[in-house]
Amino acid sequence: MVFSSSLLENAVNEFAKLPGIGKKTALRLVLHLIKQDKNEVAHFSETIDAMRREIKFCKNCYNISDKELCNICSNPMRKKELICVVENIRDVIAIESTQQFNGVYHVLGGIISPLDGIGPEQLNIEGLTKRVTEEKTVEIIFALNPTIQGDTTIYYIGRKLKELPVKITTIARGIAFGGELEYADEMTLAKSISNRIPIEHYIASIG
Amino acid sequence: MVFSSSLLENAVNEFAKLPGIGKKTALRLVLHLIKQDKNEVAHFSETIDAMRREIKFCKNCYNISDKELCNICSNPMRKKELICVVENIRDVIAIESTQQFNGVYHVLGGIISPLDGIGPEQLNIEGLTKRVTEEKTVEIIFALNPTIQGDTTIYYIGRKLKELPVKITTIARGIAFGGELEYADEMTLAKSISNRIPIEHYIASIG
Repeated sequence: MVFSSSLLENAVNEFAKLPGIGKKTALRLVLHLIKQDKNEVAHFSETIDAMRREIKFCKNCYNISDKELCNICSNPMRKKELICVVENIRDVIAIESTQQFNGVYHVLGGIISPLDGIGPEQLNIEGLTKRVTEEKTVEIIFALNPTIQGDTTIYYIGRKLKELPVKITTIARGIAFGGELEYADEMTLAKSISNRIPIEHYIASIG
Repeated sequence: MVFSSSLLENAVNEFAKLPGIGKKTALRLVLHLIKQDKNEVAHFSETIDAMRREIKFCKNCYNISDKELCNICSNPMRKKELICVVENIRDVIAIESTQQFNGVYHVLGGIISPLDGIGPEQLNIEGLTKRVTEEKTVEIIFALNPTIQGDTTIYYIGRKLKELPVKITTIARGIAFGGELEYADEMTLAKSISNRIPIEHYIASIG
């Protein structure tokens, strides 16, 4: 791409550094911004810059936060004795959007994946065991993706917490709501049979 | 989407205002920026803001420019008597990228499209007739998209310039290079036959 303006070229190159944004998309975004009011574009760039400068990680659960403690950890209505362990911030947003969970979170910052060079020491596991010991946690729910890496992580942390008086559970894996048995993979179908639930529990959950 | 941080939420909302970027993509971009160095993100937002604040439109051809006159208009090597008329800046970039054109441009800023409420008075047509009169233009090449709106615009401007001693041409429409006759639409195929070119011209152009 040949540009007749270096201001334009620089802006396109900056956008093209973002993941999933190529040069053509970047140009489309920049030409859109050129059509906007100067103050609006200034507001756009200030918001992005302020976000990066001021954002913190909650010192308790490692969730993204505006303050030392995130909104969830500092909310007195949330049950502190119920911790949901997730891989990343995106998973927190996904679970929060269901509005079904009223405990707190613990963000690992990844999952154990030797092939990617990620071992337990790179994850926020120390913080979790410390919380469980200090906060009298009653239950830990693992909400990790159902992959080998996810299962390895559950196994590793599960062993670390074995001696502590805490109940450990994992979110149910099975046929997705709205899914069809016929098209489910064998592994999912097999697990959904071996982890079958009593009908009264199921009726209570859909009631 | 439920966010536990308003800094995060504001940044996602700003990205989601951009065309073709939904909330999920915006979140992905913002989480990417959070992982980057603070200075890099500051550079990103400064570049975007500076671009919008400082960018100008060339007073001669209405192309995007860093200065009063764009790089192309102020380049003494470009033939000022050959003007290529295009719809927008994206078309200038596309033609410049071919490195085949050594004249100058005139950006209309749109094409005549009554259905979208765009009439000739909204386009930079006045400036074009002024240039043709003052600059002793020898040839005008229309490089507009081959649509009814494009053809209407060519017809309108062609009539305006009829009295002036300038040659008016349009880029060739026909079977695209690498395209197959079999799959060409009838209109394109018909036009490629009626606008056929002498074999010696063709051989010279591929030579």
